[in-house]
Amino acid sequence: MSKQQSIHAKTGENIFAKNPKISAELLTLTYGAFVHKLIKDTDNAEEVNAILDKMGYNIGCRLIDEFFAKSPSQGLCQDLNDTAKVIAEQAFKMFMGVTAEIANFDGENKAFSLIFRENPLADFVILPIQHQKLWYSNVLCGVIRGSLDMLNMKVNVYFKKDVLRGHDCTEIRVELKEIVKDKYEEDD
Amino acid sequence: MSKQQSIHAKTGENIFAKNPKISAELLTLTYGAFVHKLIKDTDNAEEVNAILDKMGYNIGCRLIDEFFAKSPSQGLCQDLNDTAKVIAEQAFKMFMGVTAEIANFDGENKAFSLIFRENPLADFVILPIQHQKLWYSNVLCGVIRGSLDMLNMKVNVYFKKDVLRGHDCTEIRVELKEIVKDKYEEDD
Repeated sequence: MSKQQSIHAKTGENIFAKNPKISAELLTLTYGAFVHKLIKDTDNAEEVNAILDKMGYNIGCRLIDEFFAKSPSQGLCQDLNDTAKVIAEQAFKMFMGVTAEIANFDGENKAFSLIFRENPLADFVILPIQHQKLWYSNVLCGVIRGSLDMLNMKVNVYFKKDVLRGHDCTEIRVELKEIVKDKYEEDD
Repeated sequence: MSKQQSIHAKTGENIFAKNPKISAELLTLTYGAFVHKLIKDTDNAEEVNAILDKMGYNIGCRLIDEFFAKSPSQGLCQDLNDTAKVIAEQAFKMFMGVTAEIANFDGENKAFSLIFRENPLADFVILPIQHQKLWYSNVLCGVIRGSLDMLNMKVNVYFKKDVLRGHDCTEIRVELKEIVKDKYEEDD
């Protein structure tokens, strides 16, 4: 991160400091126990990826309310660049205590990547060789997708890299598909 | 809690302050999403209780290492009274940011209750009427059982009351069954 903290990062940090908190390890171990159970039940990494994404979606649909309740001055974003900054610097800080870097904006400003140097979900996790198709932290993709869906933004969100798979960093790709117009405009 | 903080409560608070943390809501929502999935998959509250307990057991087996790593001056407890205090005031504070009260010691000093006034796992949760047999936070019983098992203490741990079921408080009962002697004593 740059030395000069952005307004989003500052807001995220302030809200995180005031929020009720629990030990990050408890989340790590609880999440790990659940993923372990899902893998054992299904024995299919791709199925677990889908389950985690769906669960994340449900979490995201509720977390977005918490987000706006805690940062009432946050208006709707003007463009995807702004959205990326709010997610990477503010939202992740508020709830997970970490920030992500933004990278790889495409030419049309319709897709970007979030690069994580830290991921509390996956601390101390080692991916067994037989589960190399598992995107262990896939719940995060669902959370982003669910949150943005509540704001009428339809997005594809998926892991491109994960240090657990031996990649050099952990990268989540966010691609904007469509901004849905509010349905009430069509009424009458 | 009494105005005079115990040494365990102080230690727990200090360690909690230094530990990496995440927003309590993130755990609440993540845990909620998992319990919801388990209920949907099994449609059987008692089966979910057992799954949560087992998962908690696995978490507890690892959490006890974290506990001693973070509180290296903590020796083994002298009796169950001491164990109760360490769990209620120190361990729960370290990982969940809350303390429990100790109550209802039995005559033989072989069982006690933990009374929770706050439970971050169950914040904002409403138990649907058809799931009144669910002990929503049953993972906590497993965590206590797993942690104590690693210390050679075989215990029964179960919920007696939960505000989610309309009880006046949330109460976990811990009953000591046996202290297992280290096996190496029998070797040779």
